[in-house]
Amino acid sequence: MIKQLTIIGVGLIGGSLARALKRAGAVGEVVGAGRDAEHLQRALALGVIDRAEANLAAAVQGADVVVVATPVGAAEDVFRAIAPALPTDALLTDVGSTKDSVVAAARAAFGELPKNFVPGHPIAGTEKSGVEASFAELFDGRRVILTPTENSDPAAVAGVREMWQQAGAEVVETSVAHHDEVLAATSHLPHLLAFSLVDTLAKLDDKQEIFEYAAGGFRDFTRIASSDPQMWHDICVHNEPALLKMLERFEADLDKLRQAIADNDSDYLLQVFTRAKAARDQFCDDA
Amino acid sequence: MIKQLTIIGVGLIGGSLARALKRAGAVGEVVGAGRDAEHLQRALALGVIDRAEANLAAAVQGADVVVVATPVGAAEDVFRAIAPALPTDALLTDVGSTKDSVVAAARAAFGELPKNFVPGHPIAGTEKSGVEASFAELFDGRRVILTPTENSDPAAVAGVREMWQQAGAEVVETSVAHHDEVLAATSHLPHLLAFSLVDTLAKLDDKQEIFEYAAGGFRDFTRIASSDPQMWHDICVHNEPALLKMLERFEADLDKLRQAIADNDSDYLLQVFTRAKAARDQFCDDA
Repeated sequence: MIKQLTIIGVGLIGGSLARALKRAGAVGEVVGAGRDAEHLQRALALGVIDRAEANLAAAVQGADVVVVATPVGAAEDVFRAIAPALPTDALLTDVGSTKDSVVAAARAAFGELPKNFVPGHPIAGTEKSGVEASFAELFDGRRVILTPTENSDPAAVAGVREMWQQAGAEVVETSVAHHDEVLAATSHLPHLLAFSLVDTLAKLDDKQEIFEYAAGGFRDFTRIASSDPQMWHDICVHNEPALLKMLERFEADLDKLRQAIADNDSDYLLQVFTRAKAARDQFCDDA
Repeated sequence: MIKQLTIIGVGLIGGSLARALKRAGAVGEVVGAGRDAEHLQRALALGVIDRAEANLAAAVQGADVVVVATPVGAAEDVFRAIAPALPTDALLTDVGSTKDSVVAAARAAFGELPKNFVPGHPIAGTEKSGVEASFAELFDGRRVILTPTENSDPAAVAGVREMWQQAGAEVVETSVAHHDEVLAATSHLPHLLAFSLVDTLAKLDDKQEIFEYAAGGFRDFTRIASSDPQMWHDICVHNEPALLKMLERFEADLDKLRQAIADNDSDYLLQVFTRAKAARDQFCDDA
């Protein structure tokens, strides 16, 4: 039982975590903190948080668990703001999509990595954002990846793990570097491609008609381009090495496909399409 | 009322058209034709077609309407096979995703474009294929694009239009060239990107884990990579000019994004992501 949970950044993820823990009866008071006072008032009105605090240091006072759920670009400022007031035994975790940058931010803000700091990342979300989009079931059956640092206390890891399990998630652990590589491949690169494609089409002269003729496949394919631009800006900037590595690999492969189309190389096209279909059918059970 | 409808290629699209017209009571006998006898027997067993014909010339005898619903690469062979037996007053249409290549195939097979030939393309489908995946509601409220040729008789255009309306679709008309450009942008390029991304990831050493960590956004984004490889091979080959033009534009834009990430150019990234989100939110109503 968490007596006081402080969530910094009460958006889709932070708000859904509060709702999920309340659903489980696993939390006493939820304190919400963030820069936008109006947004916090909406979270309060929705019953997602029990108390709103504009001041981050005040918000973490008395907390058992502090969850940083802002875009990853804000992590260092948040850590600096809470460092003086964070209770010694409070667990500190985050939900950022990039882990190396968040660990670096913690190191910079705290001087050394706190033993109660356990970086985390729930593999859940929708293209929507804001507390209004939050819901208690968001994490049910979804994975949360924890990437403990060399300083993370096993008891702190166990505590953060338990919190996510009570929120409905399945918890796995991996290294910071491996997390960032895998997420670059499965999440960051696809988002980049979706944003890029929609932008390319939006710049065409007949974009109105282009989008009107778009069918279901296009809607599914580009859904993630409706995601929050600031959040994805932060992810691209903060997972730069892994994302660039994957993007360069993708660009090289795509260019080979382009060449195969130009050359009428049917064998190559069929080989790529067949291998891709087999991989997706194997790994994604909705196929 | 269509007395005899002959469908060549009874897959997802051909099968769904048969089901939709039967639902509407708009067709008498549906004759199914194609190379795969076993497949035709399944279509017969499912009640999608009323008669199976392995011989294409025999299949079109007595038809009021003939719909070619094979992958576009087979169009010319099909047209050549049916040319000697096609009744003079039968309407001929197709459902191919590329229209210039199908018109060229008809010109090659028939010598000149038949006045009863009206190229068409229903903007509907799923990543599934085969008659087992067909359903009567596939075209409900979806668009069908007709691209009449310079030889198309207005009465033939009206007849094909009526058929699709009875199948539940909304029919629009545009030129062959414009169709091919718009579809390259909204359908062919996205499919190519999805196939290419999944293939890039499937070649990684830790692909098992890569796909395991993939969340909902990835599943949506890559769903179209489960589409039929042969069909998409044909589309890429047969819409080469328009697809290459759009692909080159996309590659150039993507490379600018890559450079912006490498340069930490936050303004550029935010500008692209914000413009893309605005365009998608505006044009796709599920956002």
